[in-house]
Amino acid sequence: FNRQFADLPVTIFTVMSALARQHDAINLGQGFPDQEGPQDMIRLAADALLDGQNQYAPLTGLPELRAAVAQANLRFQGIAVDADSEVVVTSGATEALAASLMALIEPGDEVVLMEPLYDTYLPVIRQLGGVPRIVRLQAPDWALPRQALADAFSARTKAIILNSPMNPTGKVFTADELAFIATLVQQHDTFAICDEVYEHLVFNTPHISLMSLPGMRERCVRIGSAGKSFSLTGWKVGYITAPAPLATVIAKAHQNLVFATPPNLQRAVAFGLNKDTAYFTTLAQDMATQGTILASGLQRLGFGVLPYQGSYFIMADITPLANGQDDVAFSRMLTEQARVTTIPASAFYAAEPPRNLIRFAFCKRPEVLIEALNRMEAWK
Amino acid sequence: FNRQFADLPVTIFTVMSALARQHDAINLGQGFPDQEGPQDMIRLAADALLDGQNQYAPLTGLPELRAAVAQANLRFQGIAVDADSEVVVTSGATEALAASLMALIEPGDEVVLMEPLYDTYLPVIRQLGGVPRIVRLQAPDWALPRQALADAFSARTKAIILNSPMNPTGKVFTADELAFIATLVQQHDTFAICDEVYEHLVFNTPHISLMSLPGMRERCVRIGSAGKSFSLTGWKVGYITAPAPLATVIAKAHQNLVFATPPNLQRAVAFGLNKDTAYFTTLAQDMATQGTILASGLQRLGFGVLPYQGSYFIMADITPLANGQDDVAFSRMLTEQARVTTIPASAFYAAEPPRNLIRFAFCKRPEVLIEALNRMEAWK
Ligand SMILES: CSCCC(=O)C(=O)O
Ligand SMILES: CSCCC(=O)C(=O)O
Repeated sequence: FNRQFADLPVTIFTVMSALARQHDAINLGQGFPDQEGPQDMIRLAADALLDGQNQYAPLTGLPELRAAVAQANLRFQGIAVDADSEVVVTSGATEALAASLMALIEPGDEVVLMEPLYDTYLPVIRQLGGVPRIVRLQAPDWALPRQALADAFSARTKAIILNSPMNPTGKVFTADELAFIATLVQQHDTFAICDEVYEHLVFNTPHISLMSLPGMRERCVRIGSAGKSFSLTGWKVGYITAPAPLATVIAKAHQNLVFATPPNLQRAVAFGLNKDTAYFTTLAQDMATQGTILASGLQRLGFGVLPYQGSYFIMADITPLANGQDDVAFSRMLTEQARVTTIPASAFYAAEPPRNLIRFAFCKRPEVLIEALNRMEAWK
Repeated sequence: FNRQFADLPVTIFTVMSALARQHDAINLGQGFPDQEGPQDMIRLAADALLDGQNQYAPLTGLPELRAAVAQANLRFQGIAVDADSEVVVTSGATEALAASLMALIEPGDEVVLMEPLYDTYLPVIRQLGGVPRIVRLQAPDWALPRQALADAFSARTKAIILNSPMNPTGKVFTADELAFIATLVQQHDTFAICDEVYEHLVFNTPHISLMSLPGMRERCVRIGSAGKSFSLTGWKVGYITAPAPLATVIAKAHQNLVFATPPNLQRAVAFGLNKDTAYFTTLAQDMATQGTILASGLQRLGFGVLPYQGSYFIMADITPLANGQDDVAFSRMLTEQARVTTIPASAFYAAEPPRNLIRFAFCKRPEVLIEALNRMEAWK
């Protein structure tokens, strides 16, 4: 078998979700909301199934969804995009990321990454023969280590992956940091793959896409997720915005990976992206409230709560509560004894991870978060 | 950009479908039915959207769909399968194929293929650094060239891809041919990736899965398609059956390519796979009738109609009608002048293709096929 894949562990999300079920724990591990997305979108997706368009969608997506993605780029980031040649619809952001990397990377190409990182980046890069160059952000504030980042770029750099808002840290990159990254990308004549699946989930912080910066329009692949923007993670509808020549190559990778995405879901997502701005601000406000409930509760319990400005996630320092246990042991114990499941943050590092951090997801109803806090209080 | 993908042509299916729209032609090119799949499945998929399960499905698929796939293996091929460890649900057969190849192939590994071949096989193998070893089947009867096939196997062979019923030829491999292939696979201690998306579309011919042969249970990846088995190609639900150790690695490739497949569609496909056998035989009978309408009409028009025993497709020899034009020019002319679209079969060859064959799809309503034949008659 292929050793790259054979040697991969089962994803931590699957491992912890299974453990959660086994112990009837509240699952604050894997990042998916426990409230359904907008009923009008769901109803539209159901109606669309019934009106006779259940054959292959076009390879790059339904025209109406591509138009909606282009429009959303303009509305939220001021980026003007041609819907026909610069948008590719994919079966979720995971596929979008794989297709983007396939379109860019050849064996020996270097890819700059920031750690802690989402768990599909490294396996896909390695499978393509790419060489990861990893720069570590440091807790608690995850500031950009500018010199280290500059040093990670070389003549062999093909791309940087920038995840903002960032999973698992909840960091939203600042305008200053983005400008610094943009300069590096341009100096080295490379590309940026911008994983922006949490673009609408920012709290009192603007989300600025790297693609919106001067000179970056032709150098960025911007990835969005209907799952995350509409709390419909099961639908697996993602979308890519990229300059036309690159979008063409990404479409060819997509052609060989999946080919097309269910048309009824695409129609509903097109409708969703055209919702007025109030929908998106309410989504962020509700999520912010949930974040605050969890953060303040964790603080009361004695966890170190790291700052976050976006995403579904809070990183917590377990040192005050762990009695010397590492993140993996502590997470397991929390599931088994407190019946609350988290993700040990070492899973987000390639090597030599910190052992004092766990990730909590707050994309859950307030009463669920409060119950989780109560369980931990009772257990403590 | 990655040269493998940058140099790929846009898939012939997209090219010809666009040309068909441009000329308002009847599209007998890209293989998708023009009749909807079972209403009860569509209704179930719509209802499932509305009952609040729109978050991530499990990585390897919903338990009820994996159970239905296991059950179908037993019912149709006598293959006993463990639903938990030996089935992986994917976002269509294209993804199933990519994930299977990723799980098996390392750079330098050889993959045996039979030409004419489906157009995603080669790009995926090449992207993985695999070395294709192509054996050509010859028109008109597409008999297995046993000596050439045996010669294509070597110590470096990792797998053979076997597509039966075969696209684009409509060939269904015989028990004898399968036994020969099984012997080679076992002698060389390799694997077979069995692309059986047309498994239920056979006409007066049994479809035997290579996996059902003695000694092949542990050496086969068997790929099925809800799109093809239920005339719902837009849904992009596929399923893989493989021995547990290999299924585990395939699941890891899937984890990094797509991760999961929409749960409402999975529930409907589970229901579909549990339909009684009459559904599947009626599907095949209706498709057989459509094939006969097209084949006899093409014969009347003067085409050479090659034998077929399954799939959606008929290969036709254009020599009597083409006035020396090649398949590409003839296909284009047929779209522009007769307003009937086909696929030039040279697209299914890696190099030095025959130039006298085009592929017709007959997965269309009888009246549409008759209208296409009338248009060609009027044009001739
Ligand atoms: C695809 S499962 C993981 C979901 C997620 O984005 C996360 O929990 O980090
Ligand atoms: C995925 S588009 C091609 C559909 C098909 O299987 C064919 O026409 O051969």
